[in-house]
Amino acid sequence: MKFKNDLFLRAARGEAIERYPVWLMRQAGRILPEYRALRATLSGFKELVETPALAAEVSIQPVDHLDVDAAIIFSDILVVPEAMGLPYQMLEQKGPWFENTIRSKEQLELLDKNIDVADRLSYVFEALKITKRELNGRVPLIGFAGAPWTILCYMVEGKGSKTFSESRKFLYTQPVVAHELLKRITEVTITYLKMQLEAGADALQLFDSWAGILGREQYQIFGLNYIKMIVEAFPNVPFTVFSKGAVASLPDISAINCTTIGLDWNMDMGSVRDMVGESKTLQGNLDPCLLYASDEIIEKETLNLLKSFKSQRHIVNLGHGVYPDIDPEKVKVLIKTVKNYEI
Amino acid sequence: MKFKNDLFLRAARGEAIERYPVWLMRQAGRILPEYRALRATLSGFKELVETPALAAEVSIQPVDHLDVDAAIIFSDILVVPEAMGLPYQMLEQKGPWFENTIRSKEQLELLDKNIDVADRLSYVFEALKITKRELNGRVPLIGFAGAPWTILCYMVEGKGSKTFSESRKFLYTQPVVAHELLKRITEVTITYLKMQLEAGADALQLFDSWAGILGREQYQIFGLNYIKMIVEAFPNVPFTVFSKGAVASLPDISAINCTTIGLDWNMDMGSVRDMVGESKTLQGNLDPCLLYASDEIIEKETLNLLKSFKSQRHIVNLGHGVYPDIDPEKVKVLIKTVKNYEI
Repeated sequence: MKFKNDLFLRAARGEAIERYPVWLMRQAGRILPEYRALRATLSGFKELVETPALAAEVSIQPVDHLDVDAAIIFSDILVVPEAMGLPYQMLEQKGPWFENTIRSKEQLELLDKNIDVADRLSYVFEALKITKRELNGRVPLIGFAGAPWTILCYMVEGKGSKTFSESRKFLYTQPVVAHELLKRITEVTITYLKMQLEAGADALQLFDSWAGILGREQYQIFGLNYIKMIVEAFPNVPFTVFSKGAVASLPDISAINCTTIGLDWNMDMGSVRDMVGESKTLQGNLDPCLLYASDEIIEKETLNLLKSFKSQRHIVNLGHGVYPDIDPEKVKVLIKTVKNYEI
Repeated sequence: MKFKNDLFLRAARGEAIERYPVWLMRQAGRILPEYRALRATLSGFKELVETPALAAEVSIQPVDHLDVDAAIIFSDILVVPEAMGLPYQMLEQKGPWFENTIRSKEQLELLDKNIDVADRLSYVFEALKITKRELNGRVPLIGFAGAPWTILCYMVEGKGSKTFSESRKFLYTQPVVAHELLKRITEVTITYLKMQLEAGADALQLFDSWAGILGREQYQIFGLNYIKMIVEAFPNVPFTVFSKGAVASLPDISAINCTTIGLDWNMDMGSVRDMVGESKTLQGNLDPCLLYASDEIIEKETLNLLKSFKSQRHIVNLGHGVYPDIDPEKVKVLIKTVKNYEI
């Protein structure tokens, strides 16, 4: 496949680039008026996730309207637990909710075994195929999944939480069951990501949204060990590991064999660069709240980030998903600043 | 005042100790059956906070029943915004809620000026006096306040939040008003803490619960600068700064002239010791979820922490407040392990 713009892939692989690529986590959905207009015609979030033509449409919207350097498939990390036999609902204003949770060996046994990932997640693969075809080489397409620890958090807790203390309790009280669950999530995730590549994804990202609530040693044991297994199943793929909040674990994350590390806005670009040398690309890490500021401040802070780069191995992004009430015009200021910056 | 047990104060000052002192954040209230029995007779949380004899009773309960090496006054960090003219309610299951919020210069002007702290917070000082008298020198008494950034978060947001994005937006859009508000909180807090010392507190702690949501530079500007002003007003007092989640800011926190740094369970004791040398005491940092584990695991992990100490300048604590559903018997295992450990 010949790309019109493959800056994202070249930056991920450490090849020469003319300028830094830029895209935004959560760019598909949330902020665009075109997304909101479509969303308003639907019964709910899941209808959009599960209808390939519509998921493809909102995946492409930010390429059309924001001129980003990569598309990411519109989906949800919770499609994996659902495929494993634990369905979820997305409640308006409240977030995800699972009727059943996994907190014991008996409950773990109720999950489906040897699932047919191609069938159960066919809607994601179909959405990727349509998106890939309609992008027509304009920019690369990113596939993704939740990291096993974060998926476990939702399966144990059954909903969002500030502390995910049920999940952390689970690690202390039932470590053997926890490892068994993580192993199963890992296996399904590897199959899921392989099929995403077959369906058209050009790069992959793992989102470990709740990495930051574990101490360093526990995150190594219950988090990074499984991420490592997944990453090692994709030796030649541009692969980003984004462990939000895991500042203390950055030395351990640096040791993983991925091409790219995603940084949140609490992580220090310079010290991570020192840890990884030129062996990895760093993605991030503007504060999502910067996009509430004036155009002048957005431009100034974006330039400060760009000037801090000591290498070409960078992909500009926020340090977390773009917040729902951000004005898309502010995103354009950020993107324009990156595109006008001469390396 | 001659103490029967002043290990906490000696450890904070870097004096010789026979064994490490131990206490738990949130030890007053929450987990003890004696607390719950008293709480059940009252109209709500605030009645307890505002009734000195009862606040004193629950402050002393953990000394009686858990045998901790320090008492902390039972109160709430939100008494400060209330004293400034922004009253709060504590909603069952939901947490704090403010009818009014501060999001503009006009709203800032509605706060009371030149308030009489001695009068408005007299119930806290009265509770401290009773507690001090009834402790009768058994252990030192810790006074506390919220750090200005965390207090601002509640005043702007009006309630708890996962991201406190309104508060962070406020920093980007109205930095001048934010600094004015932080300055006012700082002034009231200094007066408040001075009066706590006069009323009987032997040591002080600042809780910056939402430190971790700011990037390092912003936390220096809007967080640590004000903490520094407060700490410098108390040159000879054992003073703990606890900036939860601010892993990236530990080098900056280390530069503050407090006696003690509180560490959460994501912070690495060894590397902070390297930063501060023997100039500071470190407090923490067991994972609060450890107390869900078996007695054997609690003992083992507590011993691991104790063995990792390379100096006497340590106070054992959790890395966050004890969770409400923890069995007090588990806390006793932790405390016994610390007390039996020979330095």
